[in-house]
This record gives sequence, structure tokens and C-alpha cells, in this order.
Amino acid sequence: MELEEIIAKVTNFIDNKKIKDLREFLENINSADFPNIFENVEEDKIIIIYRLLSKEKAAEVFVELDHDDQEKLINCLTDTEIKNVMDEIYMDDAVDLIEEMPSNVVKRILSNTKAENRKIINELLKYPDDTAGSLMTTEFIDLKENMCVEDAFEIIRKKALKKETVYNCYVVTVDRKLLGVIDIKDLLIANRQEPIKEIMDTNVVKVHTLEDQEEVARIFDKYDYVALPVVDNENRLVGIITIDDAIDVIQEETLEDFEKMAAIVTTEDRDSYLKTGVFKHAKNRIIWLLVLMISSMLTGGIIENFESAIATLPLLVAFIPMLMDTGGNCGSQASTLIIRGLAMNEISTKDIFKAMWKELRVAIVVGITLAVANFVRIILQYQDFKIAFVVGTTLICTVIMAKLLGCVLPIVAKKIKLDPAIMAAPLITTIVDTLSVLVFFNISTYVFHLS
Amino acid sequence: MELEEIIAKVTNFIDNKKIKDLREFLENINSADFPNIFENVEEDKIIIIYRLLSKEKAAEVFVELDHDDQEKLINCLTDTEIKNVMDEIYMDDAVDLIEEMPSNVVKRILSNTKAENRKIINELLKYPDDTAGSLMTTEFIDLKENMCVEDAFEIIRKKALKKETVYNCYVVTVDRKLLGVIDIKDLLIANRQEPIKEIMDTNVVKVHTLEDQEEVARIFDKYDYVALPVVDNENRLVGIITIDDAIDVIQEETLEDFEKMAAIVTTEDRDSYLKTGVFKHAKNRIIWLLVLMISSMLTGGIIENFESAIATLPLLVAFIPMLMDTGGNCGSQASTLIIRGLAMNEISTKDIFKAMWKELRVAIVVGITLAVANFVRIILQYQDFKIAFVVGTTLICTVIMAKLLGCVLPIVAKKIKLDPAIMAAPLITTIVDTLSVLVFFNISTYVFHLS
Repeated sequence: MELEEIIAKVTNFIDNKKIKDLREFLENINSADFPNIFENVEEDKIIIIYRLLSKEKAAEVFVELDHDDQEKLINCLTDTEIKNVMDEIYMDDAVDLIEEMPSNVVKRILSNTKAENRKIINELLKYPDDTAGSLMTTEFIDLKENMCVEDAFEIIRKKALKKETVYNCYVVTVDRKLLGVIDIKDLLIANRQEPIKEIMDTNVVKVHTLEDQEEVARIFDKYDYVALPVVDNENRLVGIITIDDAIDVIQEETLEDFEKMAAIVTTEDRDSYLKTGVFKHAKNRIIWLLVLMISSMLTGGIIENFESAIATLPLLVAFIPMLMDTGGNCGSQASTLIIRGLAMNEISTKDIFKAMWKELRVAIVVGITLAVANFVRIILQYQDFKIAFVVGTTLICTVIMAKLLGCVLPIVAKKIKLDPAIMAAPLITTIVDTLSVLVFFNISTYVFHLS
Repeated sequence: MELEEIIAKVTNFIDNKKIKDLREFLENINSADFPNIFENVEEDKIIIIYRLLSKEKAAEVFVELDHDDQEKLINCLTDTEIKNVMDEIYMDDAVDLIEEMPSNVVKRILSNTKAENRKIINELLKYPDDTAGSLMTTEFIDLKENMCVEDAFEIIRKKALKKETVYNCYVVTVDRKLLGVIDIKDLLIANRQEPIKEIMDTNVVKVHTLEDQEEVARIFDKYDYVALPVVDNENRLVGIITIDDAIDVIQEETLEDFEKMAAIVTTEDRDSYLKTGVFKHAKNRIIWLLVLMISSMLTGGIIENFESAIATLPLLVAFIPMLMDTGGNCGSQASTLIIRGLAMNEISTKDIFKAMWKELRVAIVVGITLAVANFVRIILQYQDFKIAFVVGTTLICTVIMAKLLGCVLPIVAKKIKLDPAIMAAPLITTIVDTLSVLVFFNISTYVFHLS
């Protein structure tokens, strides 16, 4: 069913007070569609709709909402309703919620949370942001090493309802050390009496609680698992991360890279583009603009030094935009490929010379092609061989500098533990601008005997 | 175990001819680690290692390799060995393989494929690239509507080994129309005698064979499923897409966006950065560079028109780099946010006026801030109020034009079914350069009575 259709039906049910029909209808709507529904109905209807949901559904829907809407909703809910949500949601979602709510709301949430869950939440909150620990949930199926397949099914049958996933089950010792993993498929195929020790996979890919979330996402991408176990320093199983959270991390990290590469400051409490306020947008953009603006004044300063050359031969100035733009674009191409290569682990810092050698050769091919195109055009337009020579030579130098800087700076940034993504087009453009203008006027001065 | 350790052990086993130990050791290594192992051992050892693997493992490892290595390996394998691989691999991987191999290799592969699989492969090859059909596999668990839970387990036990996933099972009518989906968790919890019709979810999120792969990835992201059913025009279940393929699509589409936004032509047969040859790199970059270079000559042309103004007041030129860079960066910020917003479905084309209104206000805040900073700096450096006024005013106009173009162009591109990602920094920078130089010289001419 299309979203428009769903919304029309919901509105229709409410307007005609067909509450029983609406309740039934809502239970069959996918929880992930509710944020769209809530966006498209009047605000006072949201709480009516929400209160019609079953306890389980209400919790599922709650988790799907964005933080603003969660906060608004909590302020409308009774303590019992909050308690119901907190009883049902998985611990990783509970932690996300608490991290994003203002303190008075957090207080209300925690006072309506079971003591045992509150304890787990407090434990999970201790893990730094962006680590495996902050992504994991504690609701997984753990099996003991001496069980047989039949026992495992018994455990799953009893506990599955409250577990985030049953696709992978984990085998632990009595002191909770991780021994192996069993895919539910292998459990289903196996003989009922077989000891699980025989069918478990002991070569478990796992992550430490403090592992960076980007590395977690990379592991999911590489190994095609649907869940990853998280262990502490003593190899004790403390949680699992499910693949849906890994996808969120991939999306979040990608967006951050896009922003950084466009000279935008990334912030933790991110909203969608349209929901972010004007001043927050401005704040996130202005710092880099100021830094880059001041840097580009350096290029202006160089030009100022050649004022007399310009007065003698004003035509020179006409080539500056082309040189600056081409340099910027060449640097942007190289740095984007290198930054992505680093992010995807296709390039490592030790490949720096391989990458430079590749960029140098690409730059020579590209530089000569562009220089020839320019040379021909200048000869045709101005019949001036000297200008054509100066511009062509500067262009080749500019392309080589741009490509090499675009390649080296991100790798060096990674080497010194900075984020390579800041060494992207904006910064490299500014540096290449300065260099290319310097080269241009120096060659010009020499060729035309200006000064 | 760390990769270095694995490689050291493997080399050691081979050097000491401990073939039995090596065979045992290899079976416990994750298939996804083999590409790294192969990269780090001498080429003649690869085939030795590969031949030690069990039939299942050999197929798993084969799928993990990149296309170059697959081709090399096939050329070393006997027909029987190829047959073993083709018997074991999933149909979606088989199709990927065939799409990437040169025709003589394809011929050899197909002649060593079972007739029934060859038929399926030929069917799947008909779906256009980048559609759901080209991503799906035909190995899934399908249940009939009149079965009970016990029957379902019987089917799974018998067939699971050859199916890509058992996490979700699909319920179909006798003529294969999709009725519902059952998560293995619900099957495990349910009473053995319960009809599966009672526990299946009839509100199935599904995709059509011709659905765009980007949309498929978005659905996975939104609904947190581990597999999606694919149906034809008659709602007949023809395949499933698993989440690992969706992650690959997300990564691929993201990389394509990064490339497009950096003015790089994206190609279907992509290799990693270091494996791509110099001329291919150059070819992918040069077209846009030429187009943008020619466009930036327009800016040069404008400057040429104001040659006499420059001769009178050469200082003006010193501000051009700062204006150009700032305009480029502002446009880049806006277009990046809009392009990502469109890609993530946070912004739709009908939001164009909302987005423009937001960008206009952000531009005013940012523009005034930057203009004030510049104004103060120019007054301090040159004590020239007129220049400060001209530069400040141009800067505000530039920022507003850049932000509005960065916002409008990607949305318009989407509206007319172009990829918004081409309306990124490089193109917008070039356009804004021309406009800002035009504004700058016009205001200058007016204020300084130049001409």
C-alpha cells in the first residue's frame, strides 16, 4: 500500500470515528511507516493514533520516530505508557533515546524503567560514543557449551521473544567467555541430540567494546554477518551488534565524510536538512569558510605583488580563473578517490608512494591534454605563442601539484590520526590556487621580462 | 587471529610441506579473509592453497575474490573444479561472475554448469543492471499456504543447505503468488501444529524485479529486514535479495556519488584505486576537466572585457581568488547537503521552495559575517572604504548566488531525471565564478566610475 493511501485511510477512520477499524488497520502497518504517517496528520491526532497501538507495536513505533518526535510524544504519555515502552524496547534503542533527550525527560524515562534495565542502560551509557559498546544491545541468545541442539531450541523458544535476533546464537562458558557462534540454519539442519559444541563455529569474528564504529561497519561489510558479538578485555560476551545498526553507521559515516569534504562542520546531534535551523546551518558552515577565505587572501597577496606585471599585461589576469578552477577540480578528483580508498580500506597509508606514482602519471597525461587544448585555443584566439606557452606550462605544473597534493595530504592526515576527509577539495583548492598563481606570474615575469 | 599471523602460518605450512595441517587450518579461516591471503603469497602458491579447500569452502572463497583473480583462477582450474564451484555458488553470485568474465571464460563456465542452473542464470542475466532482478538470487525457502509449522521445519531441514538464507521464509500459493513472510523467530516460537497461515505476516514489503537498486537499498535501510522478496508483474515470487547485497549497493552508489560530485566519470567495470590503470584514471577524469575548463574561460572572457578597469585599478584583481574560492565553497556546502538529502530521501523535489528559503536565510547570515570580516580587514590594510564596500557587497551577492544555485540545481536535476550528484561543487563553482566576477566588476565600474 502506498503511503498516501495509508494516510487517507487513517484520516478517514479518525474523521468517521471508526476507532475499532483504525486499531486493526494500524496493527498491520509497518512500524517504519509511522514516522511518515505522523508527519502527515495533524498533531493532535498523533497521540490518538499512538494510544490505539498494542503495547509491542507502540514500542516498535516509538523507536522509529526521530528524537524531536520522541520527546514530544513522551511529554504526552502517562507514566504507565512510558513504562510500557521501556519494558519493550531493546537496550541499544533505550540508550540512544536517553543520550538524546533533555535531562528532565531522561529523569522521567529512568524513573519508569525497571531496576534491572536501568542497571544495563547505565552500563551501556559508559561506553564512549562511536564505539562498538555504544552500538550493542544486551538481548541475544546465549547457549552453554554442554547443551545439545534440542536444549538450544528450548532456550530459543523460551527467550526469543525478548531477543533482538535469533539468527545467530552464541556459545559461552560458565564465566561467559565466548566460545563459538551458531547460525540458526546449522541448528535447524542438525540432529536434535547433537552437542552444540560439535556444530558451533569456533572461528568467531568479534569486536572489542571499544572498537571504533567505523571498523565495526567495515567488518559487517567484509564478512556478511547479520550480527557481531562484542567482547570485553577478558573475552567475555557482553553484547551483540545487529546489521541494521551497522547500516546506520555506514550511512552516518558517509554523510559525515560528505560534509567534511564540503567544508561543513559535522555535529553529533544531527537533524535532517530541512529540520536543522538556519543559525545551526550557518554555524556549521561559517568556520571553514572563514579559514579558507583568509587562506585565499594569500593568493590575493601574491597577485598584489605582481601588480606592475598586471598593469603591463592585463590579459594575464584573464587566465587566472581557468587555472584556479582546473587546479581545484584536479585536486578534488585525486583527493576524493584517495579519501574513499582510505575509507574503504582499499588504500593504506603504506601505499603512499604507489598512489603518488599513479597520480603523477595521471597528472602528466591529463596536464598535457589540457595544456594542448589551451595552447591551440590561445594560438587561435590571440596568435600569441608566448602567452600560449606560459599558460600551457603553468597548467601542467598546476595539474601535477593538484593531483599530488590531493593524493598526499589525505594519506598524511590518516598517518597522523587526523580524518583524511578534511583534506578534500576546499582546502586543496585553496593551496593549489596559491601555488598556481605563483607559478603563473613567475613564468610570465621570466618569459615577458616583466618586473 | 590477525591477518599477518594467518599468512605467516600458511607460508610456514607450505614451506615445510605440512599439507595436511594446512588443509585443516584453511578450513577454519573465514572465506572473506582469503583475498587478503592470496594477495600476500606468491602466485604459484595460490592454486596450491585453493586445491586444498573442500568443495563448499572452495566455492565460498571463489565468490569472495575480485574479478581479476577469479579469471586467473579459472584459467588454472580443471573443468571438474569449475563444475564444483558452479554447483555450489548461489545464483546471484554466478550471474555476477558471468557478467564480469570475458566471453571465452564465460563459455567454459557455462559448459561446466548444470543445465537447470544454466537456465536460471540465463533468466537472471535478462534483468537490466542496477535493478532488483539483477541483484536477486533464486535460492530461498518457499512454503505453501496449507502447511503447518512442523511441515515448514521439515522443508527447511531438507532444503536449507542449498538456500542463501533461512532467516525469512516466504509463503506462496500454488501458482507462486506471494502471500506472506515468516521470520524464523516466529516459526521457532510457534506451536508445532499451528498453520503457517496464522503466523505469517501478510503485510509484506516487496520489490518488483525492475525496481532500481538504489530504491532497494533504501527499503533495506528503512525497514531493517535481512532479506527482501522480489516479485514479477503478476506478484509471483521470483527471487530474494539479501542484506549483504544491499550493503554492497549502498557502498557502490555512495562511491558513485562521491565520484560524480568530484567531476569523475563513473564506470561499470570498476576496480580499486590502485588496480585501475593510469590511462583509465585519466580518461575518467579528463572529460569533465575539459568541459569545466572551457566553461571557466567564460570567466576569463569577462575579466578580459574589463581590461581597462584592471589597468586603472590593478588592486581589484587581488580580490578575485578570495571571491571565487568563497563562492565555490559556499556552493559546494549547499549542493552537498541537498544532494545527500535527496539521496537519503530526506528532501524531495517538492521541497524546492522550502530548501531555497532556508538557503537564502543561511546565505544572508553567512554572507554578512564574511563581508564584515573582509570589510574590517580591507579598512585596516588599505584604509579604502570604497574597495571595502565593493568587495563586501560582491561577497554577499556571491554567497547568496552560490547557496541558491547549490540548492536549486540538484533539485532541478532530480526533477528532470538527471542525477543530482552532477550538480556538485565543480559545476556550481564554475557558474558562480562567472557570476561573481561579473557582479564584482560591474559594482566596481559603478563605484569607481571606471569603464
